[in-house]
Amino acid sequence: MTSDTDTTCDAFLGGRLTLRQPRRGYRAGVDPILLAASVDARPGQSVLELGCGVGAALFALATRVPSLDLTGVELQPAYADLARTNAAANKFSAKILTADLTDLPPDIRQRRFDHVIANPPYYRPQTGTSPAATDRAIAHREATPLAEWVATGARRLKPRGTLSVIQRADRLTDLLGAMDTHLGSITMTALHPRPGRAASLVIVKAIKGGRGALTLAPPLFMHRGDTHLSDGDDYTDAIRAVLRDAAALPTGP
Amino acid sequence: MTSDTDTTCDAFLGGRLTLRQPRRGYRAGVDPILLAASVDARPGQSVLELGCGVGAALFALATRVPSLDLTGVELQPAYADLARTNAAANKFSAKILTADLTDLPPDIRQRRFDHVIANPPYYRPQTGTSPAATDRAIAHREATPLAEWVATGARRLKPRGTLSVIQRADRLTDLLGAMDTHLGSITMTALHPRPGRAASLVIVKAIKGGRGALTLAPPLFMHRGDTHLSDGDDYTDAIRAVLRDAAALPTGP
Repeated sequence: MTSDTDTTCDAFLGGRLTLRQPRRGYRAGVDPILLAASVDARPGQSVLELGCGVGAALFALATRVPSLDLTGVELQPAYADLARTNAAANKFSAKILTADLTDLPPDIRQRRFDHVIANPPYYRPQTGTSPAATDRAIAHREATPLAEWVATGARRLKPRGTLSVIQRADRLTDLLGAMDTHLGSITMTALHPRPGRAASLVIVKAIKGGRGALTLAPPLFMHRGDTHLSDGDDYTDAIRAVLRDAAALPTGP
Repeated sequence: MTSDTDTTCDAFLGGRLTLRQPRRGYRAGVDPILLAASVDARPGQSVLELGCGVGAALFALATRVPSLDLTGVELQPAYADLARTNAAANKFSAKILTADLTDLPPDIRQRRFDHVIANPPYYRPQTGTSPAATDRAIAHREATPLAEWVATGARRLKPRGTLSVIQRADRLTDLLGAMDTHLGSITMTALHPRPGRAASLVIVKAIKGGRGALTLAPPLFMHRGDTHLSDGDDYTDAIRAVLRDAAALPTGP
């Protein structure tokens, strides 16, 4: 998969970040960039991404915040290899481990991080997947329950560390329940495609040892206006600043 | 409490509804009116309100939708009496029962309704309440767990009937969890005081036997602008239409 013909090289964050990723199968889009933009990391802090894929969220965060201590865990070797390639190409120092998040290697299990981030697969497991589609299936579908992603992330946090997860809006019940079991001071931000449309995604953040109540932050709208008027870029200012200028996303806490 | 000196007579819905309520203690504000506005009831359908108080939500709904079959359950006799007074004064035919929702009388337990609505107390139980404040405490605080309100409401619904609950935004995790246990096709609508501010309230609706995924409906904003500029009425158009003109609120499903 890592041969040039099977991969593409794509620019993100206004060209500040270039990612090699598979031509077919799971490809990073806007979602990991939004996740990265929502993390209030400070220079020098440690960040672990669970299921990092080719490293889109991890490296988008590193593009905005310098001198982070970066660790990524990825189950699929081909994606993990690309993440290592992408780290080197973008001049980031990152430790990328090929591992199952439900069975993390000892050197990760002995560490605690300031931030854990994850963009878990959006679709629940299905039967009847063809073997040829396995890579894509693992990246798209939920082999590990969402609650396990959250539990694993929570265990890897320092006290007051934050877990940030982006997920399909219709999984909010499970996501909030899992967050509430392990963490506190939860903040949920709904991402709506446009004003007047149901949310497609949620970013949920929580603090280890946090005791604050749930906050429903101001919603974010991806595009302006009620309908898609043209093929042009009609991103809202906040989203364009994230995607083009590597700005942070106001999602609290 | 029902003597004229202990109660006030307040106009709602642009004067279409007048409610007598206690001068002190729990007083109906905007919340039950928003709840009523979110219910997609059709003329002739049956509606049960759990914890109806003086009947604000039930009668606001009846003001907008004619010919409803109205039932209210209220634990506190003085509030139930006022609900009966308010039904008569506003020329609604309503059956108001003085009962605990965890121990409903047989004639209610034998019925199924098209819609169940509830505006459960917003504050969790506390200790140290003075005896004199008991009425107010019961109306404000949660003696019965939120999950029990939802379970009781779900049991009283016809197939495809809807349960609609308005609640403080920071209780969303518990509310979604309870809804998901008993019902489906859940729709959550966040109510923000203004753009840029965290949500204060949520309206969560669900369908008995519904199999649809959770929907995060477009958020609603109570007031215009980022800050409160004056004491004037700066409600958004949608909210003003609800409060002044008895309009419906677009909350799906």
